[in-house]
Amino acid sequence: MRPRLDIITLGITDLDLARRFYVDGLGWEPTLDVPGEVIFIQVGHGLLLGLFTGLEDDLGGVELGKPSEAPVTLAHNVDTDAQVRDVLARAEAAGGRIVKTAQQSAVGFLHGYFADPFGFYWEVACNPGITVDDDGRVVFGPSGG
Amino acid sequence: MRPRLDIITLGITDLDLARRFYVDGLGWEPTLDVPGEVIFIQVGHGLLLGLFTGLEDDLGGVELGKPSEAPVTLAHNVDTDAQVRDVLARAEAAGGRIVKTAQQSAVGFLHGYFADPFGFYWEVACNPGITVDDDGRVVFGPSGG
Repeated sequence: MRPRLDIITLGITDLDLARRFYVDGLGWEPTLDVPGEVIFIQVGHGLLLGLFTGLEDDLGGVELGKPSEAPVTLAHNVDTDAQVRDVLARAEAAGGRIVKTAQQSAVGFLHGYFADPFGFYWEVACNPGITVDDDGRVVFGPSGG
Repeated sequence: MRPRLDIITLGITDLDLARRFYVDGLGWEPTLDVPGEVIFIQVGHGLLLGLFTGLEDDLGGVELGKPSEAPVTLAHNVDTDAQVRDVLARAEAAGGRIVKTAQQSAVGFLHGYFADPFGFYWEVACNPGITVDDDGRVVFGPSGG
């Protein structure tokens, strides 16, 4: 079984709100937008972010909780410390909430967190200790962990 | 702000349990393993899965809930219907729990769900309506949504 994640799906209640934040606010173009149901946005090489109103049903009928209590974070890496601050500001302007202002992480790189309008957590980080080569292979440097 | 997700981090309580399931059970090799703290596994082109014991602290001190209530699913796509069944069986043998047996999704492709030992949901799907070209661009066919 190859290690492979193709789609990360966030279960949401309001697709219009998701569109306002991710598409209009952050400027991320949908790959597929089915009004009232689902938006898919490509967020990497072969990787989709799904924003889906039917997740509980799709799981076969489970009751899910609040996004702000989900022990999951999504990291958006940028190249410079200035971009960490810029992206956090952009997310806040789009309707996100700053959870942790830009500051040094425990490991030493600059990062911060915002929550999207539902409460899902995004980390914004400039971590020179993690690099990706041309083939997409992730390499940790001495300070990457 | 480019649409980009680099790391999906799951907040867990027991890194040894995570290692037994993901590394020993599924056979996914870690890119970085810091005992007691974090395991990173590459799960796509430039994409990491993080299994991290310090997520609440890293967020600046928030209280997070149960993985089984997190409105988030991770999709692992395979090429054939037989592989959907095989991967679900492998996950169950490794200590996962079958949440939804292999069956037709609402859109018509074969899928199922398992939960990892913490409760995080993985979808296993064979969806011919989604393809990825050589450059990593995701394309939806007529039945992909």
